[in-house]
Amino acid sequence: MALIVQKYGGTSLANLDKIRQVAEHIIRTKKKGDDVLVVSSAMAGETDRLIRLSRSIIDPPDERELDVVTSSGEQVSSGLLAMMIKSLGYDAVSFQGHQVRIITDNAYSKARIVKIDDEKIKKALLNGKIVVVAGFQGVDEEGNVTTLGRGGSDLTAVSLAAVLKADACELYKDDVDGVYTTDPGICRNARKLKKISYDEMLEMASLGSKVLQARAVEFAKKFSVPIHVRPTGRPDTEGTWVVEEEEAMAEMEDIVISGVTYDKNQAKITIMQVPDRPGIAAKLFTPIGNEGIVVDMIVQNVSTEGYTDMTFTVPRTDFKKALRITEEVAKELSAKGVTSNNHIAMVSLVGVGMKTHSGIASRMFSALAREGINIIMISTSEIKVSCVIDEKYTELAVRTLHDAFNLGE
Amino acid sequence: MALIVQKYGGTSLANLDKIRQVAEHIIRTKKKGDDVLVVSSAMAGETDRLIRLSRSIIDPPDERELDVVTSSGEQVSSGLLAMMIKSLGYDAVSFQGHQVRIITDNAYSKARIVKIDDEKIKKALLNGKIVVVAGFQGVDEEGNVTTLGRGGSDLTAVSLAAVLKADACELYKDDVDGVYTTDPGICRNARKLKKISYDEMLEMASLGSKVLQARAVEFAKKFSVPIHVRPTGRPDTEGTWVVEEEEAMAEMEDIVISGVTYDKNQAKITIMQVPDRPGIAAKLFTPIGNEGIVVDMIVQNVSTEGYTDMTFTVPRTDFKKALRITEEVAKELSAKGVTSNNHIAMVSLVGVGMKTHSGIASRMFSALAREGINIIMISTSEIKVSCVIDEKYTELAVRTLHDAFNLGE
Repeated sequence: MALIVQKYGGTSLANLDKIRQVAEHIIRTKKKGDDVLVVSSAMAGETDRLIRLSRSIIDPPDERELDVVTSSGEQVSSGLLAMMIKSLGYDAVSFQGHQVRIITDNAYSKARIVKIDDEKIKKALLNGKIVVVAGFQGVDEEGNVTTLGRGGSDLTAVSLAAVLKADACELYKDDVDGVYTTDPGICRNARKLKKISYDEMLEMASLGSKVLQARAVEFAKKFSVPIHVRPTGRPDTEGTWVVEEEEAMAEMEDIVISGVTYDKNQAKITIMQVPDRPGIAAKLFTPIGNEGIVVDMIVQNVSTEGYTDMTFTVPRTDFKKALRITEEVAKELSAKGVTSNNHIAMVSLVGVGMKTHSGIASRMFSALAREGINIIMISTSEIKVSCVIDEKYTELAVRTLHDAFNLGE
Repeated sequence: MALIVQKYGGTSLANLDKIRQVAEHIIRTKKKGDDVLVVSSAMAGETDRLIRLSRSIIDPPDERELDVVTSSGEQVSSGLLAMMIKSLGYDAVSFQGHQVRIITDNAYSKARIVKIDDEKIKKALLNGKIVVVAGFQGVDEEGNVTTLGRGGSDLTAVSLAAVLKADACELYKDDVDGVYTTDPGICRNARKLKKISYDEMLEMASLGSKVLQARAVEFAKKFSVPIHVRPTGRPDTEGTWVVEEEEAMAEMEDIVISGVTYDKNQAKITIMQVPDRPGIAAKLFTPIGNEGIVVDMIVQNVSTEGYTDMTFTVPRTDFKKALRITEEVAKELSAKGVTSNNHIAMVSLVGVGMKTHSGIASRMFSALAREGINIIMISTSEIKVSCVIDEKYTELAVRTLHDAFNLGE
């Protein structure tokens, strides 16, 4: 008897009809003899509605209270889903973050899971119940309600799958049926991948692919949780498996690049002519980090006459806050000034094949250059190359790269 | 420095404008130098919406999951209210039932408060914060989410006021500005009472007056919590104080009756020709009680030929369940059958003056008889007389009694 974790996204739970379909699918799995643990997202649009409501009070809203408000979305959907399953004749029970309990740190709206007490879940599963856990939410050690950030329900699912040593973690999506070489909305010939490695998925997620939350993939990799990204309502359609690199590579043969991804949630900030002394970077990035802002790329140019310029990117949603902090630090450091641009995007190539193939970056730069797209910043890792470009060229750049590396069907 | 507990009803928190007005009023109180503990109801219509949603899955919905779903309403409003107070420059923090913690028994949808850990609240108040507690909800010893029943936020407020020994428990209403001699919607000349005793308020609440939840009044009486029922948004308007009998009586002089109340949430069930043996009542009312159904009146007629008829009333919302149980028991007991009527109402006279004045009941029966209203069942207590009548005569009966006892202005 296997244990299957199934996570359903908000569009899969958008209304009672859809919730019924999801419940029926859960019961199909249960009927096969497997234990089922379900993680529910908020009904489509609900989280946004609650954020809007909060923002019309004050923007940004108080973070602690925002988490109290937004976590209610998953509370409602988990209760409704458990109710629906019971109404169809199968025993079910819902658990909230404070009941499971999913203990997190205190970083409101982007909390990290510290510990999961799985006792209640195990007991309920042993009693033959289908367990529905509200995604996205947890509590800190003090019992304050926290949330795990956008897409946090993926993380809830993977973490529970890891702790409970589940045989598979199925992430059901309503808007996509798997992981594609790029956004099919931009490239018509985007191709669905059968398998992808954790690392590639991780890069794609952190580079803007909205299919999976990056932290969920990280967690899955760490604990070797096999993820299956699947379409809701089509039980016979295989989606994409996210698995160990060896397993993924066996499938991919000599494919070098797995996908092209982009991220428009990007802004850059430059602090100009700052005295080039040790400790400057720490002075700037410590207060930014303390605010929970994740800095992605950092570029520091060669020091001239004891001064240096430092440019970095942050999620556009944290732009205002990061800019305010940078301006304060710039004053302290007697820098010449601060410039910023929140109309940039990042396009990236991802592929484990890069480890063994050279020349990928230069082929990428040439392809962009042929279209006259200026590269503002560059960042590379073992399995990806990212370029920051003007936001308006995003789609053009994605199509150009998808073609240049023959990723289409 | 006093501690004031303020509870706001759903219509007082119906939208962000109203939430702002409430926040401003809370801050006015805080500015006077008092500590303020606020209890929030769900935004108007939200609880009903969540119940409707649940009932369209299955009616009645699973009770445990219904509480998970409905408690989200107060979670959202408490978060928004705390956010609003902070946005106006005063420190505030929200607490849910599982955080405070408000420990209840396991009777979903009508749980009773067992214990309140007030440590977190005390600490927050000491730190100068305005504390907002989500009304209506608690958790049982196992951490399951429970709710306290309709109007349960009143109970949350009074319980917290009792535990924290608050100087006053202000219950703000948007639809009424105090307690009236009867429903002003039915009698135009209904009069607002300045003071009323706990016992009278208790009778009025349990007899259908929707101003206060009966259990909240019970609790207030037990712990001598002075309640002030006040209109939202009119800080200078005095409402009605609910206080000890001596204090209330001093005000009332020789008024015998304080009010006329009615309850349409009534249904009656008769089990016919049941063998008249000891233990019959227990056989019937034990399973009904086990389902958490509150039986109000019970009438048993004189036994003839070893058989008896037994009629009792239950809240109309529990009618189906009670009828099903009664039919099962009737079969077991070989009773002749079961009849029922869920189109009845109860009208009642309430007044502590009854203790010292006789003839109230007969004046009531005469007044109803003059209007041709048939009395189906009668029940009396020290300070009230209730008659069950055909539902269609409810308003007529209320007006008749209000006039007959000169309760108008």
